[in-house]
Amino acid sequence: MAFGDEKGVVEGNKKVLLKKYVNGFVQESDMEVVTDETILLELPHEGSKDTVLVKNLYLSCDPFMRALMSKMSESHYIEAFVPGNVIKGFGVSRVLESGHPDFKEGEYVWGITGWEEYSLITDTEKIFKIPFTDVPLSYYTGLLGLTGFTAYVGFNEICSPKKGEYVFISAASGAVGQLVGQLAKLMGCYVVGTAGSDEKVELLKTKFGFDDAFNYKKEKSLRAALRRCFPKGIDIYFENVGGAMLDAVLLNMRNKGRISACGMISQYNLEKLEGVHFLVKVITKQLTMKGFNVADYFDLYPKFLELIMPYIKNGEITYLEDKAEGIENAPAALVGLFTGKNVGKQLVVLAEE
Amino acid sequence: MAFGDEKGVVEGNKKVLLKKYVNGFVQESDMEVVTDETILLELPHEGSKDTVLVKNLYLSCDPFMRALMSKMSESHYIEAFVPGNVIKGFGVSRVLESGHPDFKEGEYVWGITGWEEYSLITDTEKIFKIPFTDVPLSYYTGLLGLTGFTAYVGFNEICSPKKGEYVFISAASGAVGQLVGQLAKLMGCYVVGTAGSDEKVELLKTKFGFDDAFNYKKEKSLRAALRRCFPKGIDIYFENVGGAMLDAVLLNMRNKGRISACGMISQYNLEKLEGVHFLVKVITKQLTMKGFNVADYFDLYPKFLELIMPYIKNGEITYLEDKAEGIENAPAALVGLFTGKNVGKQLVVLAEE
Repeated sequence: MAFGDEKGVVEGNKKVLLKKYVNGFVQESDMEVVTDETILLELPHEGSKDTVLVKNLYLSCDPFMRALMSKMSESHYIEAFVPGNVIKGFGVSRVLESGHPDFKEGEYVWGITGWEEYSLITDTEKIFKIPFTDVPLSYYTGLLGLTGFTAYVGFNEICSPKKGEYVFISAASGAVGQLVGQLAKLMGCYVVGTAGSDEKVELLKTKFGFDDAFNYKKEKSLRAALRRCFPKGIDIYFENVGGAMLDAVLLNMRNKGRISACGMISQYNLEKLEGVHFLVKVITKQLTMKGFNVADYFDLYPKFLELIMPYIKNGEITYLEDKAEGIENAPAALVGLFTGKNVGKQLVVLAEE
Repeated sequence: MAFGDEKGVVEGNKKVLLKKYVNGFVQESDMEVVTDETILLELPHEGSKDTVLVKNLYLSCDPFMRALMSKMSESHYIEAFVPGNVIKGFGVSRVLESGHPDFKEGEYVWGITGWEEYSLITDTEKIFKIPFTDVPLSYYTGLLGLTGFTAYVGFNEICSPKKGEYVFISAASGAVGQLVGQLAKLMGCYVVGTAGSDEKVELLKTKFGFDDAFNYKKEKSLRAALRRCFPKGIDIYFENVGGAMLDAVLLNMRNKGRISACGMISQYNLEKLEGVHFLVKVITKQLTMKGFNVADYFDLYPKFLELIMPYIKNGEITYLEDKAEGIENAPAALVGLFTGKNVGKQLVVLAEE
């Protein structure tokens, strides 16, 4: 396809807009799906040297997107969302037309795109060519995209795990959590996860190979539950929830433990944040708590693929996808992340290729 | 002095005992000074191969000692205190008699000793020969002992400071804080401290060379005070207080900031700990918070001396001592750490040599 020919014009582009800033839990009504009937995406001939027009195939639902919906939220790898504008996130796309020398028509890419059927991408530093297409392309919204890479960076790079160490994962049945658990098992660690339903706990133990798991909603005391699961204490905590769970963990950490702060999903929807009371354990137990932005580690992406691809090809990684079909169902899929309904990686299928 | 001769027998040894476990603020009445009239410290001829009998010259008052006074407190470098037993801490001592090949009669040592006039030290891994005696020996309770080494490890090793970075120090007029500030200035950082009185704030600015300082008790909003002092945010926070101050700092940290968790003095005397609400910033700003135990870094002690000794000899380090005289005044000196009355390093002089 030549640069600027008529295929570079898209009409009738369905997209998900942020309707208003979000307080508390995000709801479907905070977003709206509209069809943009104007010719929006005409790739201009001039001044568009480095832009790429893509057809979006899969959109990834990620908890961090909620944080970008608050008024006064800070922009990070993705700019904070603005009411009336399209929501952005990670996705898998096919290049329709390219004004950028690194991307060619027909190539598949993963990275930041709009929650819409077609996107004109100007921020091409945030899309990456898909290196292997002998695995399902949708994996690049998850296992081989941000989700898997987050699990790898947050566990392998941030925590420096060693064989035999005791690893605890909260929101363990979530997309990142279930991968961290498997990476930890492959490393020879003892792995316990927690989740919010008996079904999820069962999945952790039977499907994802965790050594143990518990339903935090059924425990009278999180502290006691952790003491039961880890009589010798926790070396590594992969933090996805924050709040009261973090407090219980702090009380059960071993000396020199590492906490990889990946998410605090229990806090994102609260108007008043929960207090964490036992941070003094960071001192008395010489703990390290570290937040990270995977974007700072993208140079390690090839190293990650080198580790993970053989596991995938040998069937040593179990990976579940939760697919919502069509952009109309995208808001509900995103909201579902926070109500605990999904088990696998939540994604939205716009077009299968 | 020969091993086991009559000088190895000490009678009438005055000592500070823990009277009862402490709740809330430590008070003088939680301790008692007694004279042990029994022959307590006779160095046995057998089974005492590695023990050392010392005369204690200076005792160091350190905030961590409070933590060891609670019932159910965890033992760390020093075992938790038990009512009826002598309190322990860092001190400077002279060897009276030694059953250990590494220590000789007449040598000076610093390290863990009892809060008493004479101690029989069995845990000789926790005493260190004093390498330079051309500085006041009392410095080894502070500037050249745990205090200075804590400042060095907690700042230089934990935070990897770079020239031009923005450094904030809480409890900055305290023994560790004032040294961290000076190490940071010598490194070329911009340094702001906070303290609890106008006199201390003045000292920070005039005597210790801080770029700025404020009295946290006079600020309506700690968050606003920090924004005023650090319009561009904080790169390094040297944490001595915890609680509300930590929350205000989290809101003002820059991306990839480092928090060296040295102490949380605001929390040690509370029966119910304050909640910290903005830990989610650890994630959104990719912060690292790290607790440490200087004991794990003792192999760096020579490196520390190499850095600090020239500064001391050239008069580039300002060091204040707050000396209590006599073991009878030791409990009050320790309590004073928590009431904000002392400015310099608080120590107790048992004998000047």
